[in-house]
Amino acid sequence: MNQEKITELKKWMASEQIDLAYISDPGHIAYFSGYKSDPHERVLALFISLNNDSFLFTPALEVEDAENSSWTEPVYGYLDSEDPWEKIAQLIKKNGIPAKIATEKEALSVARFERLNHAFPSSDFSASITPIIEKLQLLKTPDEVTKLMEAGDWADVALEIGFKAITEGAKEQEILAEIEYQLKRQGIRSMSFDTLVLTGKNAASPHGNPGSTAVAKHELVLFDLGVVHNGYCSDVTRTVAYKEPTDFQKEIYSIVLEAQLKAMDAVKPGITAGELDEVARGVISSYGYGEYFNHRLGHGIGTTVHEYPSLVTGNDLVIEEGMCFSIEPGIYIPGKVGVRIEDCLHVTKTGCEAFTKTTKELQIIE
Amino acid sequence: MNQEKITELKKWMASEQIDLAYISDPGHIAYFSGYKSDPHERVLALFISLNNDSFLFTPALEVEDAENSSWTEPVYGYLDSEDPWEKIAQLIKKNGIPAKIATEKEALSVARFERLNHAFPSSDFSASITPIIEKLQLLKTPDEVTKLMEAGDWADVALEIGFKAITEGAKEQEILAEIEYQLKRQGIRSMSFDTLVLTGKNAASPHGNPGSTAVAKHELVLFDLGVVHNGYCSDVTRTVAYKEPTDFQKEIYSIVLEAQLKAMDAVKPGITAGELDEVARGVISSYGYGEYFNHRLGHGIGTTVHEYPSLVTGNDLVIEEGMCFSIEPGIYIPGKVGVRIEDCLHVTKTGCEAFTKTTKELQIIE
Repeated sequence: MNQEKITELKKWMASEQIDLAYISDPGHIAYFSGYKSDPHERVLALFISLNNDSFLFTPALEVEDAENSSWTEPVYGYLDSEDPWEKIAQLIKKNGIPAKIATEKEALSVARFERLNHAFPSSDFSASITPIIEKLQLLKTPDEVTKLMEAGDWADVALEIGFKAITEGAKEQEILAEIEYQLKRQGIRSMSFDTLVLTGKNAASPHGNPGSTAVAKHELVLFDLGVVHNGYCSDVTRTVAYKEPTDFQKEIYSIVLEAQLKAMDAVKPGITAGELDEVARGVISSYGYGEYFNHRLGHGIGTTVHEYPSLVTGNDLVIEEGMCFSIEPGIYIPGKVGVRIEDCLHVTKTGCEAFTKTTKELQIIE
Repeated sequence: MNQEKITELKKWMASEQIDLAYISDPGHIAYFSGYKSDPHERVLALFISLNNDSFLFTPALEVEDAENSSWTEPVYGYLDSEDPWEKIAQLIKKNGIPAKIATEKEALSVARFERLNHAFPSSDFSASITPIIEKLQLLKTPDEVTKLMEAGDWADVALEIGFKAITEGAKEQEILAEIEYQLKRQGIRSMSFDTLVLTGKNAASPHGNPGSTAVAKHELVLFDLGVVHNGYCSDVTRTVAYKEPTDFQKEIYSIVLEAQLKAMDAVKPGITAGELDEVARGVISSYGYGEYFNHRLGHGIGTTVHEYPSLVTGNDLVIEEGMCFSIEPGIYIPGKVGVRIEDCLHVTKTGCEAFTKTTKELQIIE
């Protein structure tokens, strides 16, 4: 239970005269309540009340787990045979009809919004909690930074396992299986996304699918992976060579590395998210490869692997101490070569510190 | 690309005078278009037009993959630096303003709904596509049944690996790591959900978390797992014993097995979803354990691991040939014992056939 963030949310509610906030995104519910669960199609909801009891509402079979989490306020459950919306409406009405109910408009389905609307026809539903949650999540507390550091350490471990698994003829799917096996044996429950191990031409698609392609001599191997640890995600990319790379591969690698390092160097409070993107894009464009860097520079990271800020051209958001995000330029020339280098980091008073420490000098696996 | 289902969707659109259907759920986009992707916070959308071109709209870095999928109509992309909603509105407006636009109300955020609404202020947005998608997905084609069978075969393979990994002192997380390792080496890209391996008291929570608990003699071990194969999911649960189980464990097991088998026997066209739940619940209640079966009997399965129908008390939906769902009764006595047995199946003309074949007689691992 993150009392500090709940207090900040309530301050915002008071300033906007909002009586009740309905948190619907499971990641955000975990962020505030400390209870993490994937409810699939069932209803999991967190209601934060400004002046009355807040409560967590879960499927009946999760009530025990929710009560054993760090959430200390009431937990109510519903059976599969019950209508959750009737129960929710009753629970809320015990303290009267809220005049103003805020919802997570970016993370709430139209159908559920209509159900709640229908139960409280006289309430004002115009307010969205999404912007305040984004703002709260944008600035990480020291405790959150520590958790992101730990998740980053596991990503470094994962890369080390992956590098060791590279041998001639090893298939992409075998290498990724080895990485996840070693991590899961040590208690990692989930990767933060499907692990990518891509070699040769496959690495030239920024979102390629690992398969039965085998590692061959003088080819690059791209790893993009992360773990979930204590509810926080890591995300790292390294591209390495199996046996001596070609001059062309080395050239592309050195350009991406220069872009990544210059962007990391530029990170400090006061610069904007868009300017950071331009630093990396400028380097790559200056060598004539601008068209092959076809995605934004980076994304925020925290309890989810993609959150705010978005490091993209034109984003005027001013970077502040405590923000956490990725810096991940890449060059993808279809059919030829793909290189991406990525670290996630937290912004300090004067610069930044990366969560992952694996070397970025081009590694040649022999 | 599932032309048959798109044709059925268009028939429904014609009957409801809907000009444009906006499919927003990535699983449903895959179902109709054949293009599967997790867009995270980016916009992935499928627009099915009744009388004009249908199109797939994806992030720029996915356009190539989408064009290489089985989807044969246009694909349009947007860069991270562009506003996807402006582009979408322009693409739609090329063919005039649709009078009636249907959206997936169960799988579309309020914010995105409002964006589209704002771009077409004169259009009627009252229709929801959710019910027709549920109806289409409810009845699987023979090709879909074949894919679910294949996914089921992999789940049987996974159980076999898991049973072999049971040794004294093996931790839950080590056993699940072994299962996923062997599958991923063979090319399985994703499990359909986080694999559950729970032993002893941990199995007494229907949604427990595997951890460092080790298998001990005379304890039960519960496996709940599935794979995604060719876009279709499997889901199976077996509970086995390590060394001779106690009489109490055997009693609970035999009750759950009786409930599972009787419910499977009762599956045939004409019975209702609620009646099936009652068959299994009746068996468990007759032995006095009704309160410890605290979830519904089952859920539909297809391109997602939980879909319609829901096998729950009071659901009057009449079962038909071609429906695919799980039958998974369980008894969970906190601190004491947990048993669940689950198969997914497809309904035939006269009964049903399970996708998983692993024996349900209580296995005693020596």
